[in-house]
Amino acid sequence: MGLRQERWLGPDGESEHPVLEFPDWVDVVALTSGGEIVLVEQYRHPVRQVRLEFPAGAIEPDEPPLAAARRELREETGFVSDRWQRLGSAWVHPDVQSNRIHSFLALDARRIADQALDQGEMIRCVRLPFAVFVERLERGEVELPALQLAGLYLMTARLRRSAQGWLPALRARGGP
Amino acid sequence: MGLRQERWLGPDGESEHPVLEFPDWVDVVALTSGGEIVLVEQYRHPVRQVRLEFPAGAIEPDEPPLAAARRELREETGFVSDRWQRLGSAWVHPDVQSNRIHSFLALDARRIADQALDQGEMIRCVRLPFAVFVERLERGEVELPALQLAGLYLMTARLRRSAQGWLPALRARGGP
Repeated sequence: MGLRQERWLGPDGESEHPVLEFPDWVDVVALTSGGEIVLVEQYRHPVRQVRLEFPAGAIEPDEPPLAAARRELREETGFVSDRWQRLGSAWVHPDVQSNRIHSFLALDARRIADQALDQGEMIRCVRLPFAVFVERLERGEVELPALQLAGLYLMTARLRRSAQGWLPALRARGGP
Repeated sequence: MGLRQERWLGPDGESEHPVLEFPDWVDVVALTSGGEIVLVEQYRHPVRQVRLEFPAGAIEPDEPPLAAARRELREETGFVSDRWQRLGSAWVHPDVQSNRIHSFLALDARRIADQALDQGEMIRCVRLPFAVFVERLERGEVELPALQLAGLYLMTARLRRSAQGWLPALRARGGP
């Protein structure tokens, strides 16, 4: 992460504007064939809490977003999928940051290995029935980072519009 | 905004962790009685584009979140509302930031004044039928910051669960 001050000419003359430089990020809504969502729980120091999140991370140099999503899911949870869908992407927060987040859906996710964590990472993999997860989230019993709720919005929008085979299947399992 | 390095003792020994300090933020989904959403468009230097966003901003010291939401809506668009609902709040990005975003819904929003912009702010107020906005968003023709999609997710979740009077009315106007 980098923070630099940029000067630019705005309506009020030249001014300084802080710009946070991050690589683009990915996050993954990973669902098993049994209708569970695969989540991760880890200590987040800025808020001094253990937090529940979608598997997520930063894209490496020259890495395509989907490859980064596959890698992060595999490393953080040991899960893989052969059925990936791109949910969409968005600028994270254009007022101060220059990066985008790319959200993916991984269907029929299955665990094939142990986690492969970076040095110093301590992540617990958590599985919940997707319908239970959504219910707890909407009741405020669990909470995701705001920028990960974007992925969930894009997914529910896609579900509303989709007539693909996995939609009735997810619904039958109590999904959205 | 502040950036500081914190040392903390993790599983891998003591390490440095960057923490971005921001005040909490608010954003507002503002709907008129005619079924329009009130948005703002402004130049965002980190991404070098004019971007469409919900009215939003930072909470001032000792300011309650709702008061900040009212103030930002009024300042950025000239709109006010007497029917506010809290949509929810979430940590923005607990990996690097220590602040939360609070999302509000403002119903029957009406324009009572001109914008009251800060020195150097240049913001265009944009109104769109809400159904058109959602359709363009989901087709990728317009895009919100990821962290503002959180507010939209919380709103659609609330709409799904709500049996209040304004839900059938919004639906009749082609809303979600």
